[in-house]
Amino acid sequence: MSAAPGTGSAPDLSRCSLNQATVKHATLPEAVAAAAAAGMGAIGLWRDRVQEVGAEKAARIVAEAGLRVSSLCRGGFLTAADDAAVAAALDDNRRAIEEAATVGTRELVIVVGGLPAISGFGQGPRPDAVPGDRDVVAARARVADRLADLAPVAAEHGVRLVLEPMHPLFAADRGVLSTLDQALDLAQPFPADVVGVVVDTYHVWWDPELREAIARAGQEGRIAGYQVCDWVLPLAADPLHSRGHVGDGYVDFPTITRWVAESGYAGDVETEIFHEGVWAADPAGTARTVADRYARHVLPALTARAAAPGR
Amino acid sequence: MSAAPGTGSAPDLSRCSLNQATVKHATLPEAVAAAAAAGMGAIGLWRDRVQEVGAEKAARIVAEAGLRVSSLCRGGFLTAADDAAVAAALDDNRRAIEEAATVGTRELVIVVGGLPAISGFGQGPRPDAVPGDRDVVAARARVADRLADLAPVAAEHGVRLVLEPMHPLFAADRGVLSTLDQALDLAQPFPADVVGVVVDTYHVWWDPELREAIARAGQEGRIAGYQVCDWVLPLAADPLHSRGHVGDGYVDFPTITRWVAESGYAGDVETEIFHEGVWAADPAGTARTVADRYARHVLPALTARAAAPGR
Repeated sequence: MSAAPGTGSAPDLSRCSLNQATVKHATLPEAVAAAAAAGMGAIGLWRDRVQEVGAEKAARIVAEAGLRVSSLCRGGFLTAADDAAVAAALDDNRRAIEEAATVGTRELVIVVGGLPAISGFGQGPRPDAVPGDRDVVAARARVADRLADLAPVAAEHGVRLVLEPMHPLFAADRGVLSTLDQALDLAQPFPADVVGVVVDTYHVWWDPELREAIARAGQEGRIAGYQVCDWVLPLAADPLHSRGHVGDGYVDFPTITRWVAESGYAGDVETEIFHEGVWAADPAGTARTVADRYARHVLPALTARAAAPGR
Repeated sequence: MSAAPGTGSAPDLSRCSLNQATVKHATLPEAVAAAAAAGMGAIGLWRDRVQEVGAEKAARIVAEAGLRVSSLCRGGFLTAADDAAVAAALDDNRRAIEEAATVGTRELVIVVGGLPAISGFGQGPRPDAVPGDRDVVAARARVADRLADLAPVAAEHGVRLVLEPMHPLFAADRGVLSTLDQALDLAQPFPADVVGVVVDTYHVWWDPELREAIARAGQEGRIAGYQVCDWVLPLAADPLHSRGHVGDGYVDFPTITRWVAESGYAGDVETEIFHEGVWAADPAGTARTVADRYARHVLPALTARAAAPGR
């Protein structure tokens, strides 16, 4: 891995974290080894890979590699309207809270879910719609209700529910939480150490209120994570898998990173990429690329605050 | 065409307008004939089809069919940074303003443009980025500057520049104007009869602030158009062409239409669909489907205000 341009020494990767989704086909031990070999300070875990080895063993593997767990992905999918689905979602999220505590992170990322899934919905004429199935306002209200159900459980385990606003591209089928301000409004009723937010560049880069929303999130003590990946075009056949390496697309990382740094965020920076091409690559090589892009496009702005405190 | 469910008489299509993009492969006379045969009150024109026959003749063809022109699409693409491109954009928009006046509408829809186009940009590693090319904040500021250039020209011709917020899906390559509130902020320095906004369900349905933003737009007298089409999944290979007929997807038309009606908007409702399948269909049949879906999913909520004024 090359050093950042213009510096003679190795870049400081202590806040650089490899989100496990970026190396989707690697097991937990393989992903940990790749992150450690690239010199990173942390790894963001996913529940499916944690469950393969067990949460306690996962915690040991990460610790023995000298890494921290920056977050656990993910809980959520809280928009169901019927009682059985609500109960199932609550059960699953309680387990996710316990797993986060066991693997040693307090940050549980929450993807809230889309409009209730109905077979064939949104793919052709369906004049006799089920009442309420297109009601995004009601779906968002149900998310608030489920957060109220889960917040006491999270608090009891010392875990924070970290709301992830998703790009409006995904509002229909994956996440009715669409902006950082909306996430902060949802978090408002709860203590800042129980419900937080994550700033993911892919999801929020377009938001005309982003600078103000990041500042607000910092003032409210809610920023629980900063995730980076790039908006590349054309979109992949599955738009969920369209994300690119930092620097490959349209996102202005120095600017957004500066806003995050100015908000006071001092935590880890996870690179989380969903992309078939990235997944097909060697995990160790991917981790080196992640570290290199972090050093080039993120790190300089992340530390600019300390260098210019009056800015 | 069937009447709206639950009514015994033919639906009132006087505010129903066929945006010409919905029948992309039809000439202007063909599109006008299709809209008139379906019983609509208006048509939304596109400049390329207007220019084929000439603006004065286009105005006559529409009037002789008994229709109004609900809007002209489109001006815009105002984000260029270099002097030559800025001058070219201003020239083109001055011509669009004149064409709008000549075809007989005061509503000129403006798509503001994306980040400056650079060959290969956003499609792979490009570490030596041109400074500023990812700066969406600066691109938005240039839009404001160009509106200030064009507003006096529009006012002189009795034409309104109608800002169209676009879905954030298109922020990189087509429209850095992403929300209705952002459009209203951009419009603020100008009189309401010189710079307005259009509410397009496809672009704004996901916005958690939509209800409040529509109410604000109504209070400020800025709503210059209401366009409808549906969000369908999966996205088409070209996401720009993913839109579906009203009722085929996820958009809650009764709710959004009620918000628009409650804002006081009393103008036309254009159906504007970009979709290869819709374009391949017979224009007359497409116009009938548009009218039918309007009658079923839009019209009842559009007129609910008069029926329940205290709501």
